[in-house]
Amino acid sequence: MKATLMYGAGDVRVENVPDPTIVRPTDAIVRTVRACVCGSDLHPYHSMAHTDHPKPMGHELLGVVEEVGAAVTSLRPGDLVIAPFAWQDNTCVFCQEGVQTSCLHGGFYGTPEVGGLQAEFARIPQADGSLVVVPDVDETSDLLPSLLTLSDVYLTGYHAAHMGRVSAGKTVTVIGDGAVGLSAVLAARQLGAERIILMGRHTARTDLGVEWGATDVVAERGEEGIARVMDLTGGEGSHIVLEAVGHMPAYEQAYGIVRPGGVISRVGVPQYEKAPIGFGSLFGKNATLTGGPAPVRAYMEPAIQQVLNGEIDPGRVFDRAVGIDEVAGAYAAMDKREALKVMLTF
Amino acid sequence: MKATLMYGAGDVRVENVPDPTIVRPTDAIVRTVRACVCGSDLHPYHSMAHTDHPKPMGHELLGVVEEVGAAVTSLRPGDLVIAPFAWQDNTCVFCQEGVQTSCLHGGFYGTPEVGGLQAEFARIPQADGSLVVVPDVDETSDLLPSLLTLSDVYLTGYHAAHMGRVSAGKTVTVIGDGAVGLSAVLAARQLGAERIILMGRHTARTDLGVEWGATDVVAERGEEGIARVMDLTGGEGSHIVLEAVGHMPAYEQAYGIVRPGGVISRVGVPQYEKAPIGFGSLFGKNATLTGGPAPVRAYMEPAIQQVLNGEIDPGRVFDRAVGIDEVAGAYAAMDKREALKVMLTF
Repeated sequence: MKATLMYGAGDVRVENVPDPTIVRPTDAIVRTVRACVCGSDLHPYHSMAHTDHPKPMGHELLGVVEEVGAAVTSLRPGDLVIAPFAWQDNTCVFCQEGVQTSCLHGGFYGTPEVGGLQAEFARIPQADGSLVVVPDVDETSDLLPSLLTLSDVYLTGYHAAHMGRVSAGKTVTVIGDGAVGLSAVLAARQLGAERIILMGRHTARTDLGVEWGATDVVAERGEEGIARVMDLTGGEGSHIVLEAVGHMPAYEQAYGIVRPGGVISRVGVPQYEKAPIGFGSLFGKNATLTGGPAPVRAYMEPAIQQVLNGEIDPGRVFDRAVGIDEVAGAYAAMDKREALKVMLTF
Repeated sequence: MKATLMYGAGDVRVENVPDPTIVRPTDAIVRTVRACVCGSDLHPYHSMAHTDHPKPMGHELLGVVEEVGAAVTSLRPGDLVIAPFAWQDNTCVFCQEGVQTSCLHGGFYGTPEVGGLQAEFARIPQADGSLVVVPDVDETSDLLPSLLTLSDVYLTGYHAAHMGRVSAGKTVTVIGDGAVGLSAVLAARQLGAERIILMGRHTARTDLGVEWGATDVVAERGEEGIARVMDLTGGEGSHIVLEAVGHMPAYEQAYGIVRPGGVISRVGVPQYEKAPIGFGSLFGKNATLTGGPAPVRAYMEPAIQQVLNGEIDPGRVFDRAVGIDEVAGAYAAMDKREALKVMLTF
């Protein structure tokens, strides 16, 4: 089958690799219908050292079950399924507590053992916990893009809003106009936020954010951006800040604009380990810092219903679709910001 | 009047200074009945550079109203009052949101303008918001020590537990066996925690922690301490960690033992600005970091009732009482850990 491999920064290739097979009785094999490139894939695309042992790429997938292991009980060949971006048993103590990304028996795609999901087929470990069936939808549905976003991007935005405890009457600021930031706008609106300030400078993107509920757009960054948000909030700051970038300047903006007693919720994978959290940044104003890799499995069923009902249309983050042979161009287009998010069709 | 002044590390003196007077119509003058030395007073006691402009010390006070400004409506001379460790109007938007330590018109004691509370008299700004009357108690009551703790130490421990969202069924670990840590144990028990692990190595202190509800005591620190807590929690970690120290090793322990999806709540004033918060510390396991200077005003009335009803006895953190002339010895005794917390009587 064809699969996407990264050999180093800027070097993404499609190669023929062996088809995956059932390794454990809890596995399933899925034929990919849709996959996509994630903003987080761009981090290694910028920084990965060259290697002769390339990294299998991709962790977002909508597909059809081909084969299940002997221990799989909830899936049948032919089921249309969404794969959350991490795999999990969905039964361990941490899964029960809603932190499926920390599943005791789970893990992340993109290892030599499990492979990546930007490929024609995938082996899904812990398939009963790691695949969610979409009822009454087939491969020709117009809803496939929106369903695909439940694999990661929309529900990552949702996780930010959920952990930030967004509710009616709160002012929410979203930092970042990438696909996750825009998803966070949509999710914040779903959770009742009326005032949503979107910090971003790409008009085509912030326009979608406005359609999804952003009430203000702030193009300025750094100290200017902080001053603008403080001005918009009457000098008080934002109750909730959803940080959907992962770089230090975004975090610095976050603690600059969060209100006393407010919450910063991060879902951009931090490209730093140490950062300010002392009296002058978080502690002095009783700001809460939360967030992490989204346990999208926890939010999946109601979100599927919202897509099927037409209540949300998160698939609009995809502004380009290509076949797997063109995946290198998809990475390049997202890296140059020519594309917001690229879908792979199979 | 006599007041406590710090001239530099290790140099605390009692000196005669002018009696405070009403400066603004919202002020009150209070005659001190009880005050005390705070663990946070020991930070400058260790590190403050020598100065000829000494810092007035103290921010915890139980006293009797002597005089009120023309705009003060809720207080009368003779009222027995508790002063929260920060002053506030208790009406601004942040006060209404329960973050009185960020009051738009508030501030902290210990400045040349406002003075400190380890003194015979005090000028209390924004007196209507900054003093809470204790009904039906006089200066001879046995409850004075417990009431004094509501000025800071007990309600700071309570703030940690409240922000950590302690509730029934949660495992809570308290880092630090100082007066705030022990108060956090007592507060966690009040909020329903059944399993409370207290990390501390001073048996006289941890014994009080056990009386107040700690179910396990861990004397080990650092990696050993982390391993011990992980072992006690079946390898899962603690739902909630209350960090009542403020030094980096305590924070490192906190993220080492917090469970995926758990909360670290800090009330020890951080003696650092930057610290790990990336994938390897907080983000990867969706840990939440919260806490800050306790808005004790928000918690005052129900806590006064609990003291008056005999439900809590937080005054047991005081293991020594001296007059103001001996305040230098009080600092020294706490610094050497000969005393847990010293009360000043007037």
